Amino acid sequence: MQIEMMADVAAGADRRGITIQQVGITEMHLPIRVARKGGGQDTVVARIALAADLHHEARGTHMSRFVAILNEWRERPVSYHEVEAILQATRQALDADVAHITLAFKYFIAKQAPISGIESLMDYDVAFHGRGDDEGFRFVLAVRAPVTALCPCSKEISAYGAHNQRAIVSCTVEVSPGKILWIEDLVEMVEAQGSAPLYPLLKREDEKYVTELAYDHPQFVEDILRDVVALLRAEARVSRFSVRVDSHESIHNHNVYALHEEGLPAHPAPTQD
Amino acid sequence: MQIEMMADVAAGADRRGITIQQVGITEMHLPIRVARKGGGQDTVVARIALAADLHHEARGTHMSRFVAILNEWRERPVSYHEVEAILQATRQALDADVAHITLAFKYFIAKQAPISGIESLMDYDVAFHGRGDDEGFRFVLAVRAPVTALCPCSKEISAYGAHNQRAIVSCTVEVSPGKILWIEDLVEMVEAQGSAPLYPLLKREDEKYVTELAYDHPQFVEDILRDVVALLRAEARVSRFSVRVDSHESIHNHNVYALHEEGLPAHPAPTQD
Amino acid sequence: MQIEMMADVAAGADRRGITIQQVGITEMHLPIRVARKGGGQDTVVARIALAADLHHEARGTHMSRFVAILNEWRERPVSYHEVEAILQATRQALDADVAHITLAFKYFIAKQAPISGIESLMDYDVAFHGRGDDEGFRFVLAVRAPVTALCPCSKEISAYGAHNQRAIVSCTVEVSPGKILWIEDLVEMVEAQGSAPLYPLLKREDEKYVTELAYDHPQFVEDILRDVVALLRAEARVSRFSVRVDSHESIHNHNVYALHEEGLPAHPAPTQD
Amino acid sequence: MQIEMMADVAAGADRRGITIQQVGITEMHLPIRVARKGGGQDTVVARIALAADLHHEARGTHMSRFVAILNEWRERPVSYHEVEAILQATRQALDADVAHITLAFKYFIAKQAPISGIESLMDYDVAFHGRGDDEGFRFVLAVRAPVTALCPCSKEISAYGAHNQRAIVSCTVEVSPGKILWIEDLVEMVEAQGSAPLYPLLKREDEKYVTELAYDHPQFVEDILRDVVALLRAEARVSRFSVRVDSHESIHNHNVYALHEEGLPAHPAPTQD
Repeated sequence: MQIEMMADVAAGADRRGITIQQVGITEMHLPIRVARKGGGQDTVVARIALAADLHHEARGTHMSRFVAILNEWRERPVSYHEVEAILQATRQALDADVAHITLAFKYFIAKQAPISGIESLMDYDVAFHGRGDDEGFRFVLAVRAPVTALCPCSKEISAYGAHNQRAIVSCTVEVSPGKILWIEDLVEMVEAQGSAPLYPLLKREDEKYVTELAYDHPQFVEDILRDVVALLRAEARVSRFSVRVDSHESIHNHNVYALHEEGLPAHPAPTQD
Repeated sequence: MQIEMMADVAAGADRRGITIQQVGITEMHLPIRVARKGGGQDTVVARIALAADLHHEARGTHMSRFVAILNEWRERPVSYHEVEAILQATRQALDADVAHITLAFKYFIAKQAPISGIESLMDYDVAFHGRGDDEGFRFVLAVRAPVTALCPCSKEISAYGAHNQRAIVSCTVEVSPGKILWIEDLVEMVEAQGSAPLYPLLKREDEKYVTELAYDHPQFVEDILRDVVALLRAEARVSRFSVRVDSHESIHNHNVYALHEEGLPAHPAPTQD
Repeated sequence: MQIEMMADVAAGADRRGITIQQVGITEMHLPIRVARKGGGQDTVVARIALAADLHHEARGTHMSRFVAILNEWRERPVSYHEVEAILQATRQALDADVAHITLAFKYFIAKQAPISGIESLMDYDVAFHGRGDDEGFRFVLAVRAPVTALCPCSKEISAYGAHNQRAIVSCTVEVSPGKILWIEDLVEMVEAQGSAPLYPLLKREDEKYVTELAYDHPQFVEDILRDVVALLRAEARVSRFSVRVDSHESIHNHNVYALHEEGLPAHPAPTQD
Repeated sequence: MQIEMMADVAAGADRRGITIQQVGITEMHLPIRVARKGGGQDTVVARIALAADLHHEARGTHMSRFVAILNEWRERPVSYHEVEAILQATRQALDADVAHITLAFKYFIAKQAPISGIESLMDYDVAFHGRGDDEGFRFVLAVRAPVTALCPCSKEISAYGAHNQRAIVSCTVEVSPGKILWIEDLVEMVEAQGSAPLYPLLKREDEKYVTELAYDHPQFVEDILRDVVALLRAEARVSRFSVRVDSHESIHNHNVYALHEEGLPAHPAPTQD
């Protein structure tokens, strides 16, 4: 069999005159290494989409090249510059003007319980989104940080108690050119705006503390959203952003949400697994 | 083309000597009508699996017959007796000893807010599971009812407040032969065991009420589980059951759960959409 | 208890100066009635988000009003005009400039098998998205239609056979003012662009037909996308649109996709349940 | 604050007389290290449930101890013996008779394309389930391996072509005491029973090969199931098992499945993310 003689159907001409904005692979899973703030790297498991545009003359792209590029990169740590380099390699391999990538993964941060100081690892849903073309490179960092939300209305009208619940703050930011914004930085900003942060491991003295902290800091989803928006507007490392807060109301079977976009589309509603 | 002459590969003989316990279709969606307690019917959208056993002599089943049976039944209301009849039709159509069905759907029940009395519709995840063979018919009803769970420990150790959250009570019961157990009955039993029930629509006076009610009735997942188990053991309409409670802790990013099986396997952990 | 004297915390003033674009409810489920092309109505089960903007002076919205509006509307059929009316009612009830709604549901269309003519019901994921403000009303229809995609490359290079698989065509269109575009119309347009349509119920003569049809019409995801884009550009009832095609490759454990946006953002990648 | 004087509500007595079979944590996520066949370790991200029974005298368990145990173990590689040790530690920490654990994760195996020999990493859904009590330890390994399934009926009745699709083989096996069964071993057994294996990276000569291989080896879900059942019955390292095959039919919008249990319950239907 002479492989070089096999017809390359995808390379054939197309006559519909339509340039496709994105064509590539999705739901690809690979372990990747991500740099930590403060040094070192973590191995995470990423769900990946990688795509490029396709000129109107070509019928199909070369799907295997996207897979090959990702397999080549999996031994190296992935951060801002590597995302840019992967997009550059993709544009060259596919002879494309624009390339797009999404790497979504669970990222772990060690947290110390507020009173006992006991340490445990908490998981966050994080994504890197990159887009590269001749005019440059855009890097978007997205995190989902859960917080406690205690309802100010319920507290106010009730003789005692107040309904509270897990709320998810979804934050998508474009990092300003030349700046570095660590996952840890964005998580820290966001978590502080709930009624209380969440922790995997709490001793009883910690549980007392977070219960009272939340009761002392009631926050509507509107409050959390506005506090995050105000922070991001003032943040020099962020050029554009969107914020979404979804609260899994403990008194309802539906959620309440607030959403605000300044230059970037918001996440879809989070699901909880 | 002479269709009757087309080879029927599935009808061919198989020599591995293995009788298959279940073979059929799954992830089929159809609107079905379900009888309400108190009369009338609701149209629900069911996710359906229908299967039969396959004797060791036959290589394959006739998949299209499962689809045909479900399409025939979709105009008629589906309850205990119709599930039995569908299984009977399946056994005949497939020449099978045993047939299995699952119909999973969202079911809606009108609820009145506790103080204002205002009415709204709340959704519950419900499933009918049926199994029929020569020895008879077994009907299993499964419901997932969300409740508020307020932590007794958090209440006890804190000067004020108490963390609370949505918890899902998953209850699977085999209905005793000759008995009727309505979805509404099982939901009512289960909901009463949380710290407070959930409602879609609450006025402020209702929100005050449920906030204080939950604070007055703190319940661990262990408490909710035991209260449901005690009720089901005493219930003549139920012959076997399992119960599972999953609480979406507002102070953690993981859930806590309790599970108990008396003759039936428990649901897998619920996901929330 | 004098309810009218209860403090209304949400109505309090807010000093952060941030108008929120969307605040409301999500993951609400209700049965609704949808008008069919050709007359009649279907009851579907909708997953609903309803929201409005919130002026910078107000601290919180009135979440219960969103629930109340949806419960009022659930007895009436929902289509283009009713979506507009719900948004109008929402703006009034919340004293808001803009209102947003999404109603997502499974919709069923009767299909006839291509040779035997036998009829069965097939499910499609459909959503209505509406946005209303002083300048008018925008109605967006989104459908996900599965098709068979048979790989042209695999067919060309192989001595026999060709890998094929289920692909999902996700199409989001803004309906031109004053025009009507039925769900059935959009599904029909989209389904015709795969290698073959899908059917719930196929007799053997039908299975032969669709197998050969797919082999005779190999289509890359790029081909399907371009054919749909060309149709939508030529369609007077559509003012803006996006298209996304995801193919669940039978030779890989990842998917391939193509995406094109002309004025509307594309769906996120579909998951399969 | 004197922490040691805080009331321990969970330690209080319970009078309902109900011993709970499982109570603990779920949806906990942690990076863990898993030993590879042939040496070395991989870091994977596990979704974890850990639970113990609760005697009828105690009102509640100590949830934080489950979290503490998992955080202690995360630096060490996890395999058969470590699962046993975690369960032993759990029983001691909770003063329990029985402990249960599930660790579910994506696991990666390097595959070589069949003709070009090019290597890439493929992901598999894997779970370790453990149960420990005074009578011993049971270790269950579950894998989900996708394969190509090409329909024998479609091939037989069609003049050319045959519908094919991704099918998921879900295999759950209890490892015989004293034996070792690697993830790699079980995946290899299962993958060989489809019409063809899947690969992340295929050159054109490989794509030709797998297309023709699948056409030459048509397999119903019944065939795949029986071939796996026959292998597992003959496998000395396996004492009990269940097998489930779900095929995402390219000609339908529903799936077909076959399921067989010999001593262990089958997986629920897989969803695809």
